[in-house]
Amino acid sequence: MSATKLAQLGEFGFLARFLPRLPRGRGVLIGAGDDCALVQMDSRRVLVTTDALVEDVHFEKQWMSPYQLGRKAYLVSASDIAAMGGRPRFAVVSAGVPPDYPSRDLDALHRGLAAAARETGAQLVGGNLSRADALFLSVALVGEAPAQPIERRGAKPGDLLFVTGRLGEAALGLRQLRRDPGARGAAVRRFREPVPRLRAGAVLAKNHIASAMIDVSDGLFQDLGHLCRASGVGARIELSSLPRSAQVRAASETLALAGGEDYELLCAVPPRRLARLQRLRPTMGCPITRIGEVTPLADGVRVVDARGASVALRQGGFDHFAARRR
Amino acid sequence: MSATKLAQLGEFGFLARFLPRLPRGRGVLIGAGDDCALVQMDSRRVLVTTDALVEDVHFEKQWMSPYQLGRKAYLVSASDIAAMGGRPRFAVVSAGVPPDYPSRDLDALHRGLAAAARETGAQLVGGNLSRADALFLSVALVGEAPAQPIERRGAKPGDLLFVTGRLGEAALGLRQLRRDPGARGAAVRRFREPVPRLRAGAVLAKNHIASAMIDVSDGLFQDLGHLCRASGVGARIELSSLPRSAQVRAASETLALAGGEDYELLCAVPPRRLARLQRLRPTMGCPITRIGEVTPLADGVRVVDARGASVALRQGGFDHFAARRR
Repeated sequence: MSATKLAQLGEFGFLARFLPRLPRGRGVLIGAGDDCALVQMDSRRVLVTTDALVEDVHFEKQWMSPYQLGRKAYLVSASDIAAMGGRPRFAVVSAGVPPDYPSRDLDALHRGLAAAARETGAQLVGGNLSRADALFLSVALVGEAPAQPIERRGAKPGDLLFVTGRLGEAALGLRQLRRDPGARGAAVRRFREPVPRLRAGAVLAKNHIASAMIDVSDGLFQDLGHLCRASGVGARIELSSLPRSAQVRAASETLALAGGEDYELLCAVPPRRLARLQRLRPTMGCPITRIGEVTPLADGVRVVDARGASVALRQGGFDHFAARRR
Repeated sequence: MSATKLAQLGEFGFLARFLPRLPRGRGVLIGAGDDCALVQMDSRRVLVTTDALVEDVHFEKQWMSPYQLGRKAYLVSASDIAAMGGRPRFAVVSAGVPPDYPSRDLDALHRGLAAAARETGAQLVGGNLSRADALFLSVALVGEAPAQPIERRGAKPGDLLFVTGRLGEAALGLRQLRRDPGARGAAVRRFREPVPRLRAGAVLAKNHIASAMIDVSDGLFQDLGHLCRASGVGARIELSSLPRSAQVRAASETLALAGGEDYELLCAVPPRRLARLQRLRPTMGCPITRIGEVTPLADGVRVVDARGASVALRQGGFDHFAARRR
């Protein structure tokens, strides 16, 4: 293995190999490998997470304004808090910025970060500024955990699978921006500004509706795989049931499955919780759609068409290290 | 100002202009602008900070092993916790890594981070991995605050100035590595592995010895300036009193003043606390040396030689945006 490059192993290959070795100890209730870490500080259970946007990996400069970029850097981290049913409280940002970066753009970056934090009930409380050849923004977020945070593990065969909002829109926006940096429209707006499903996540956690949850950041199929591996189960997804706009449906069959950057919540719901889900649906602030069910591990993770036939997937999702090999 | 580039304004110029506008609100006791943010979560007061190491800005690949780099990325953040007298508890890392980076090196980075965290009583609980052309490591750290965290502001004229450990060693090590990437010796070791003064910081906070404190990361003169501006005071430093090795003294008169990366603690101590400082000195885990005193604001920040004459400084410290202009 000594000559293995990250590009061959991929982000998830590396994480799968490495994460189990991270220490679990005093005060660590949920460690690396879930959307957030859950730690205990006195009586308070605290969520901690970090995410980054890197120029020419996650975005190109002409695709969005510095203000929009600052917003997005915060919102993608907030989505990790949503995925455990928590409330974001305090953010710090570590920014790497080229020396010729205009200071008014840096100001706009920070204003975007601070505004997006404020809108979700959190505050940007500090940061660090470094020189870097390519712009990057790493946001770390500290949040309040619900009494029972929802982990990736916990789904059982027979649970039903639900997803919030709609899928594939951001990926379509990304595709449009790649073709034309001046592209406009709903898909581009969604790529620029994800909507962390904080209310839905909190409702699902507080009312013990979901048995397992993850945010869909790398494409539904890939993140479903993470949830299934953590839970030791399989899953069957009905392609025709995926919530997507007519535009997304027309663009490509696989966008909603493998596109990435949806930042919706995928969760498993035991059948006995369905009535409660139904009752609380109007309080979630977004649609939530049944897309399939959890199956035994041996059945694997399958996508079926309207006739029940398996759909072959050429692309599993977004892994920016491994992408070139596929 | 609209055409101002970050390189002209400098990191501190930008921070000075921007930070006062960051929101202060619910639960934020000390916001951006100090070494850490201090926030309230229920009854617990929590420190949050972030710092980053960026390839070709803070280090070159051949200067240190991935394991050493992982350690350093953690230790520089822990120094911010030390500067407020806190205890580091939980770390998350956001890593940007080139696709051709060997996975065993990434493994070593993480092992270094996790080991350094463990050695200071903290744990690495999560992380995020992105592709990036140049390696970067952003570490965010959550710590326990002492009952009375020490801020940068609070120094009064007449207070005495103390610094832990010795100054200029890391800067000498950096100079040696720039000349010869294979350089060895105490200075190089110190550049590679800073020693956050967690015990000294905790003793100074818990026993109400220091009125103001900062960690010396950008050079003594620069960080003294931050402390003085925050406190609204001036300072007089006696050059001959600066603690430094014979090697540092021989290398350059200004290394100990402007070198950077010392990660020692600089603090102001009211005269009535001197007896207590004296008594607790053996418990701090490192030397602590008197280097000058706090003066009225109008006197400015001065460095004097053994005869009391002002020493002119050509270089104020380390600002990696502004460095080229000086």
